[in-house]
Amino acid sequence: MSASSTHAASSTGTARHRAVIIGGGFAGLAAARVLDGPDVDVVLIDRRNHHLFQPLLYQVATGGLSPANIAAPLRRLLRRQRRTRVLLGDVVDIDVAAKQVVLKDGASVPYDDLIVATGAVDTYFGHDDWRAHAPSLKTLEDARRIRHRVLGAFEAAERVDDPAQRQALLTFVVVGGGPTGVELAGAIAEVAYRTLRGEFRALDTGAAKVILLEGADRVLGAFSPRLSTKAADGLRKLGVDVRTDAMVEMIDEGGLVVRETADGDGETLRIGTHNVFWAAGVRASSLGRRLAASIDDLALDHGGRVPVTPHCTVAGHDDLYVIGDLARFEDDAGAILPGLAPVAMQQGRYVAKRIRARLRGREIAGFTYLDKGNMATVGRTMAVAELGQLRFSGLIAWLAWLFIHLLYLAAFENRVLVMIQWGWNYVTRGRSARLISGTNPAERLPADGEAAPS
Amino acid sequence: MSASSTHAASSTGTARHRAVIIGGGFAGLAAARVLDGPDVDVVLIDRRNHHLFQPLLYQVATGGLSPANIAAPLRRLLRRQRRTRVLLGDVVDIDVAAKQVVLKDGASVPYDDLIVATGAVDTYFGHDDWRAHAPSLKTLEDARRIRHRVLGAFEAAERVDDPAQRQALLTFVVVGGGPTGVELAGAIAEVAYRTLRGEFRALDTGAAKVILLEGADRVLGAFSPRLSTKAADGLRKLGVDVRTDAMVEMIDEGGLVVRETADGDGETLRIGTHNVFWAAGVRASSLGRRLAASIDDLALDHGGRVPVTPHCTVAGHDDLYVIGDLARFEDDAGAILPGLAPVAMQQGRYVAKRIRARLRGREIAGFTYLDKGNMATVGRTMAVAELGQLRFSGLIAWLAWLFIHLLYLAAFENRVLVMIQWGWNYVTRGRSARLISGTNPAERLPADGEAAPS
Repeated sequence: MSASSTHAASSTGTARHRAVIIGGGFAGLAAARVLDGPDVDVVLIDRRNHHLFQPLLYQVATGGLSPANIAAPLRRLLRRQRRTRVLLGDVVDIDVAAKQVVLKDGASVPYDDLIVATGAVDTYFGHDDWRAHAPSLKTLEDARRIRHRVLGAFEAAERVDDPAQRQALLTFVVVGGGPTGVELAGAIAEVAYRTLRGEFRALDTGAAKVILLEGADRVLGAFSPRLSTKAADGLRKLGVDVRTDAMVEMIDEGGLVVRETADGDGETLRIGTHNVFWAAGVRASSLGRRLAASIDDLALDHGGRVPVTPHCTVAGHDDLYVIGDLARFEDDAGAILPGLAPVAMQQGRYVAKRIRARLRGREIAGFTYLDKGNMATVGRTMAVAELGQLRFSGLIAWLAWLFIHLLYLAAFENRVLVMIQWGWNYVTRGRSARLISGTNPAERLPADGEAAPS
Repeated sequence: MSASSTHAASSTGTARHRAVIIGGGFAGLAAARVLDGPDVDVVLIDRRNHHLFQPLLYQVATGGLSPANIAAPLRRLLRRQRRTRVLLGDVVDIDVAAKQVVLKDGASVPYDDLIVATGAVDTYFGHDDWRAHAPSLKTLEDARRIRHRVLGAFEAAERVDDPAQRQALLTFVVVGGGPTGVELAGAIAEVAYRTLRGEFRALDTGAAKVILLEGADRVLGAFSPRLSTKAADGLRKLGVDVRTDAMVEMIDEGGLVVRETADGDGETLRIGTHNVFWAAGVRASSLGRRLAASIDDLALDHGGRVPVTPHCTVAGHDDLYVIGDLARFEDDAGAILPGLAPVAMQQGRYVAKRIRARLRGREIAGFTYLDKGNMATVGRTMAVAELGQLRFSGLIAWLAWLFIHLLYLAAFENRVLVMIQWGWNYVTRGRSARLISGTNPAERLPADGEAAPS
C-alpha cells in the first residue's frame, strides 16, 4: 500500500525517535507536553480537534458555560512544540508487530514508542437500548444534547395541559451517584428552581422534580461516608430527591422502573419522565480490545481495561504504553488506581519521562501515584473535598474546587473568561449559555398538543 | 377541535387585548418590549428559544465568539414583563378571518392584533442544488457548520499530499459582497493567515486562498463608492482576492464556475474548492406566501415581501402588522426601506406604540425611518461607516462599530463577556471558540488518503 511504504521510507530517512500518542485527553496531552524536546518527534492523534476539560461538562449541559469555555484546540495548546504534530484521525487498529497505528481511512502511522490514552466511554451494562432514552455525559455533543433536553422539557411543559404529561416533562432523573451524577443533579435543580424561575407563564418551574438514583447505599462512594452524607444533604437542600439503594430495572420512552433494594428485594417503582440522564458507568475505550486481539496473553479486565506493568507498559512490550482510564494499574498495595484526571496526567508525565530516559540509555523506577485528593461540587457554593487526611465541605471546599479547576484551565487561554462567566452567573443566578438549537424541542409535544396561552 | 375551543373560551373570558407577535428577531423583540404594560397581553411565538444578534454570526462562523455570546434566551430577555408570554412553536398558517395563528402541531393562538416579523431566509435564486455545496450564514447552526468546514478544511489539507487536492481544500470562496460576505471573507483570511499560523506542520496556512466574489462592480453596494473602495482595499491588505463583476454560473462538490463580466460577456473561470460560502441573497420568509394566500388582492414583491401601508399594516387589515425584513415599506420618497436591523427595530417600536395608542382611541402618524447610518467591518481593526453625512473608515470606524454593537448587546447580559473575549482575541490574535464537533472532518479525505507525518 502506497501510504505505508511512504511512511516506512520517511521513517527510515530520519534518525529521530518517534513517539506516537493516541488520544488528546488528560493523559495524552500531559505526555505530549513532557515529550517536547530536540530528541523526539511526537505525533498526537485524536478524533477531535480539541482537548476537553471533562469535569466541567455538566456546566455545559446546564447552560452555565459555553462549549468553548472548557475545550481548547489541540493545535493551539501544542503550537510552540515544533517537533510535535497533531493529526486529526480515527485510530481503528494497532499493528504491534509492524509497529504502526492504522487509521480509519487506511493510512498508517509508524512508531518507535506508542502511548495509548483513549480513555473511557459510557456503558449501559448490556442495556444498549436504554441509550436512546437516557443520554450520557462524556462529550461536548452529549452536553449539548442534555442541555437541549433539559431546556426543551420546560418549553414543552409550558404548552401541555394534561397534568400527568406535564409532570413527566418536568421530572428529571439522573442515574448514578458518582461525581458526574451529583454535579449534574445539583445543576439541574438550580436551573429549575432558580435560573428559570419567573420565566414561564403557564408553568411553575418549582413543580419540577429532580431525582438522583444510586445503586449503592450512598452517593460519592469514592469519598468517606461522612462526606457522602454531606453531599446528599446539600443536594436535598437544593431540592434534589436523593434515592440510594435504587437499582434501575428498565428505561423506556415514558420513564423508568426502579427497584428499591434497601430492605432485601424491595419494591419496584415506576417513574414517569421524559428526561433520564445516565451517569452510572464507564468502560475502557474499544481500542483495548484491538490490543488484546493482536497481543497473545493480554487479557482485559471486566471493565475492558488493559493491565499494565509498573512502567505503564503492556507486559513484554517495552515500547507500548497504556495510560489513563484505559489502563489497569495495580499499585504496591494491590489497589487498582481509579479513573481520575490526576492519575491520567501523572501517568502521562511519567511515560514521557521514561521514554526520554531510555533514549539516553537509562531506566527509571516504576510509576507511583501521588494522591492529592478528590473533590466534587454540589450546586452553587457547596462542595466536598478530601485532600490527604483533610476532609471538608461547604463554601471552603467549593472555593478550593474552583481554585484547582481554574488553575488547570490556566493551560487554556480562556481561564479568565470562565472565571468571569462564573462570577456573573453567581451574582445574577443566571445561566447565559441556554441555547436550544437544531430540531424544535416543542415538537416533542404530542401531535394534538395545545398552545394554551390563557 | 379542542385546542381552538379552549382558546376561544379563555379568550372570551378575559377582557384584555391580546397582541400576538410571530418572530423574536430585532423587529419582534422591539415590539414586545414596547407593548409591555397593563392593558395588553403579549404572546411572542418563535421557533427558537433565543434572540440572535445576526450581525455577529460571522464571528461565530470563524471561531471568534461562542454561540451563547451572540444569542440570549427570549424568556430571560422578557422575564420581567409579566403580561408577556413566550411560546416556542412553528407557525404554519395565519387565519385572518378567524383571527388566529396556526402552529405546526395543530394548536391555534387567537389574536386581537397580529405582528408578523419572521424576517428573511437565504435564497439561491432557483439553484437550490447549490445549497449543499455552499452553506449560507443565517442561523447559529449555519455558523457552526461553516466553522466546522473552515477548520476541517485545514485539518484535511494537513493530511493530503496531492497538490491540487490540497489547494482545493485551502481555497475559500465567499459569494456575495454585501456586509456579511465582506465580514466573513475578512475573518476567514485572518483565521488562515494569522490565527492558525504555526499550528500545522505539513501545511503552510499562508498558502490558503480567500476569494470574495461580487456580481456588481463594487462590494458593499449600499455604501458610497469611496467606502466600497476602502473596504476592498482593506480586504486586499488582509490577503483576500476581491473579484467584482463576477457572476457564479455553477457550484458543485469540487468547486464553482464564475463568469467575469467586466468586459461584456467575459470569460468563464473554474475555481477548484471544497469551501464555498453563500452570502449572495436573502428573500422574505415563507409566511408571506401564507398571508398572500388568505388575503385577496395581496401581491408579494419579487423578493417575497409583503407590501405594507404607512402604518406598517396590510392594506384593509388594521389589526395585521408586517414589519422587518418581511415587509416592503415604501417611504415618502418612493424608496423601499432596506432589510436592516435598525429598520426592523424602529418598525417594532412603532407598531407597538400604534397598538397602544389605538387602545386609547387615538391614531398616530405613519412610520418614518430615522437613518442613523450603516457600517461594516473589514478584519480586525478596519471598518467603513456612513453616519448621516459623515463617511469614515479605518480604526475610528471600527471603534464606532464596536461601540454601537456592544451598546446593542447591552440588552443581553453577556456584553461584558463579549468585550473581554474580543479584547483577548485582539491581543493574542487568537480565536478560542475553534471547536470542531460532530462528524470527523478528516473523513472528508479520500478513502486512500495518507496520514503522511514526515
